[in-house]
Amino acid sequence: MSGIESLDILTEQFARLPGIGRKSAQRLAFSLLKYSPEEIEAFIGAIRDAKEKIHRCPTCQNLTDRDICPICSDPGRDRTVICVVEDARAVMAFEKVRSFRGVYHVLHGLISPMSGVTPDALSLRELLLRLEDASVREVIVATGATTEGEATAMYIARLLQPLGVKVTRLAHGIPFGGELEYADEITLSRALEGRRDFD
Amino acid sequence: MSGIESLDILTEQFARLPGIGRKSAQRLAFSLLKYSPEEIEAFIGAIRDAKEKIHRCPTCQNLTDRDICPICSDPGRDRTVICVVEDARAVMAFEKVRSFRGVYHVLHGLISPMSGVTPDALSLRELLLRLEDASVREVIVATGATTEGEATAMYIARLLQPLGVKVTRLAHGIPFGGELEYADEITLSRALEGRRDFD
Repeated sequence: MSGIESLDILTEQFARLPGIGRKSAQRLAFSLLKYSPEEIEAFIGAIRDAKEKIHRCPTCQNLTDRDICPICSDPGRDRTVICVVEDARAVMAFEKVRSFRGVYHVLHGLISPMSGVTPDALSLRELLLRLEDASVREVIVATGATTEGEATAMYIARLLQPLGVKVTRLAHGIPFGGELEYADEITLSRALEGRRDFD
Repeated sequence: MSGIESLDILTEQFARLPGIGRKSAQRLAFSLLKYSPEEIEAFIGAIRDAKEKIHRCPTCQNLTDRDICPICSDPGRDRTVICVVEDARAVMAFEKVRSFRGVYHVLHGLISPMSGVTPDALSLRELLLRLEDASVREVIVATGATTEGEATAMYIARLLQPLGVKVTRLAHGIPFGGELEYADEITLSRALEGRRDFD
C-alpha cells in the first residue's frame, strides 16, 4: 500500500499476473510511471493489438493471427498424427526441436479439480471432431509430467481408446545430461520401467 | 519468437520492464491473451489512471496524487530534518517503520556514470531551493549501500557542506539477526569502524 490509490490499483493489476508477487508488481507499476506518454501508448497498443488479432486456429486450436495457423495450413505436415498439448507454449517448444512433423491439438489447460478446471473447459470436443476423419492413425498425448498433466493424459486416453485410434504418450526417464544421483525416485523408477533394448 | 507478430511485440513490451526476462515476458503476454475484454480494459484503465493522476510533489518530489503530498502537508512532521532518498519506494520503506518524523526529498535516481545518469538528472536543484529556508538544520542522506548509492551520497555531501547545513548518513553495520560469520568483509569492517559505547 503506497497511500496513492491509483498506484495501488495498478500494482494490484500487475500482481494478478502469473508469477508476479507483490514486490515485483509494485516495481513494475513504478516503472510504468517513468514511461513517456509515447511509451505508454506503445505498451497499451501492443496489448490491444495482440488481443484483437490473435484467436484460436479453427482446426488445432493453437493461437494464431491467420485464418488457419501456419502448421495446419502447411501441406508438408503429416495430418495422420496429432500431438495433443496443454498450450501454445508447448507447440513452440516442439517446433523449436523440429523433430515432429505431424500436427497439434491445443487443449488450453489441464484438468484440475483443485482449481475447478473440468474436462469441458478444454478443447476436447474439437479433438473428437477431428478424429471423425478416419485418416488419423495416432494421437500422442504430450502433456507435462505433473499430477495435472498425467490426470489429463489418462482422461484423454480413456476418451479416445474406444474410437480405435492409437493413443501414445511421451517417454519418461532421465533427462539429457541428468546424473543418476540427482534423479528423484519417480523419475528413476520410470526410466527403469521404460528401459529399451540397444538398437 | 512465436511466429505471431503481435504476440512477439507484446512479449517485447513486457521484456522491457525491469526484472522481466524473455521467458517471463512471454508468460505474461500469454496470460493477457486469456483475459476477458473487461479485464483488459481494467488493466489498461489502471495504467492510464495512474499515469494521469500521479505526479511529483512540488516540495519533496515524492510521487503523489494530491497537490502537496500527505507528508509535506502534515503539520505534525518536522520540517527542519530532510531525509534524502533515491525513490518513492524508499519513502514507503521509512514510513513503514515509523521511526522518522521529518520530511523527505526524493532524488528519482542515483548518479551512475555507467548508465549515463549525471547529477543533473536528479532533483538536486529542488533540494538546494529547499535549503534556502534557513530553518532546515539537518539533511540525512539515506541512499542505499551500493556503489551508486554511496557515490551519490558523497556528491550530495560535498554539494551541501558549503551551505553550513548538517549532513549525515545512515549507519552501516551488521543487520538485525545477522550472524557474524555470514557478514561480508566490508560490512564487518564498517560495523567495527562505526562501533559505539554502550549507553
